[in-house]
Amino acid sequence: MDFIEKLEKRWNNKKFVCIGLDPVLSNLPKHLEGNFFEFNKAIIDETSDTVLAYKPNSAFYEALGYMGIRFLQETVNYILSNHPDIPVILDAKRADIGSTNHGYVDYAFDYIKADAITVHPYLGREALKPFLERKDKGVIVLTKTSNPGAGEFQDVVVEGKELYIRVAEAISTSWNENGNCALVVGATYPKDLLKVREIVGDMPILIPGIGAQGGDLENTVKSGLTKDKKGIIISSSRSIIFASNDEDFAEAARVETEKLHNEIQKYI
Amino acid sequence: MDFIEKLEKRWNNKKFVCIGLDPVLSNLPKHLEGNFFEFNKAIIDETSDTVLAYKPNSAFYEALGYMGIRFLQETVNYILSNHPDIPVILDAKRADIGSTNHGYVDYAFDYIKADAITVHPYLGREALKPFLERKDKGVIVLTKTSNPGAGEFQDVVVEGKELYIRVAEAISTSWNENGNCALVVGATYPKDLLKVREIVGDMPILIPGIGAQGGDLENTVKSGLTKDKKGIIISSSRSIIFASNDEDFAEAARVETEKLHNEIQKYI
Repeated sequence: MDFIEKLEKRWNNKKFVCIGLDPVLSNLPKHLEGNFFEFNKAIIDETSDTVLAYKPNSAFYEALGYMGIRFLQETVNYILSNHPDIPVILDAKRADIGSTNHGYVDYAFDYIKADAITVHPYLGREALKPFLERKDKGVIVLTKTSNPGAGEFQDVVVEGKELYIRVAEAISTSWNENGNCALVVGATYPKDLLKVREIVGDMPILIPGIGAQGGDLENTVKSGLTKDKKGIIISSSRSIIFASNDEDFAEAARVETEKLHNEIQKYI
Repeated sequence: MDFIEKLEKRWNNKKFVCIGLDPVLSNLPKHLEGNFFEFNKAIIDETSDTVLAYKPNSAFYEALGYMGIRFLQETVNYILSNHPDIPVILDAKRADIGSTNHGYVDYAFDYIKADAITVHPYLGREALKPFLERKDKGVIVLTKTSNPGAGEFQDVVVEGKELYIRVAEAISTSWNENGNCALVVGATYPKDLLKVREIVGDMPILIPGIGAQGGDLENTVKSGLTKDKKGIIISSSRSIIFASNDEDFAEAARVETEKLHNEIQKYI
């Protein structure tokens, strides 16, 4: 199953929550002794029936050096082996010139074996071809990011339209020839999310910024949903995975995941 | 010594060549059996007296998974231990929201121990603070990249100026409070390089695109140089490190490095 098919199947079952598997040493329960894989595995075991997707962010693993990369690979392998129907998004925010991107394609899709990757748009479509040509994999392009200072360049006006609107227009047309593109729009900018949804039709939108970053859930769901009541990947990380940092962390993560899942259902 | 001091010292000795340490399994001499560290070490041993800097691109190491990260760390450790005066640029083109960038800071500066990193500007200065706050480290921001399709977003016109010009203006003012910023401008766009140099004064500019990508050297040097005949980091990778893929690869790399070094001297 390719990335988009995996998403569709789970949207049909009303799953919308994407858990950001972003461990940090100082927040890990002590009995795990820094083992990111054991941390993730426990959370996956408790939440796999509720989630739409998992999204490990490469930065948190790279912070540990090569051991972190092993934990990341083990984590994705565990998901694919036990839950082959759950898509895994590698949040890596990569993008280089074309010849170099082949290295990142090897890393994300062939070594880590993720179903999708997040990328920066700044180098343009031509550079991103090695990602875009992988028809079975999702290419999720940063459009309007969730951080407070996102507008510095994303909101500059180009011929009457903000740059992020131009990016959304490009991603939904020339970039999406293989039907494998998606976009990132932060929950912290619900009006911009609505504008992007109008441009991109039923394309998947990955929406970080709920929870610790303060995005409003009702507004986000209503602005992001397609007419078919699909299309949104609501991502939450810290408020789920660090709900407790004691031995009950996985159960606490389950409770938070179900709470978010149930709250989303109210706005569908 | 911080990144900028290391550069200054070597510019004073008329070093301008930055070697991109970007190994690819299929191009490695067979007797090395895929050991990226041994490949890099041999090239470093032959070229350390001629170069300005080394620039491993993280993508080529990540392609091998965790073993690649070990090779990358060994390589940087070898340079720092044997040639502490040569700056190491980790070409990783990272950028995420602030809290996540701490992971990349740990990876690039504390684990790999690079002197500088390349980053995307799309998320804005606020997000990049964890990098910018490391006063001893260089933050090299993509401004006009070397790839043929770079202009898709970089050349859009915002209030009469191309976006890459706006980026250059921001990097050279608000982003550069700690005096640790630099910019990337491709040798494939010498006119744009000249415009950026006029905006950024004597800030360092990392210039890829010479060699395999076809940038013109004379034009590049003349457009990029500061009034003090400094400021340029001329990067070349494939045409140096793959000059031979036989047992004489390191000597061949030395010959190509000296050729490039000598040619640059003609245009200074």
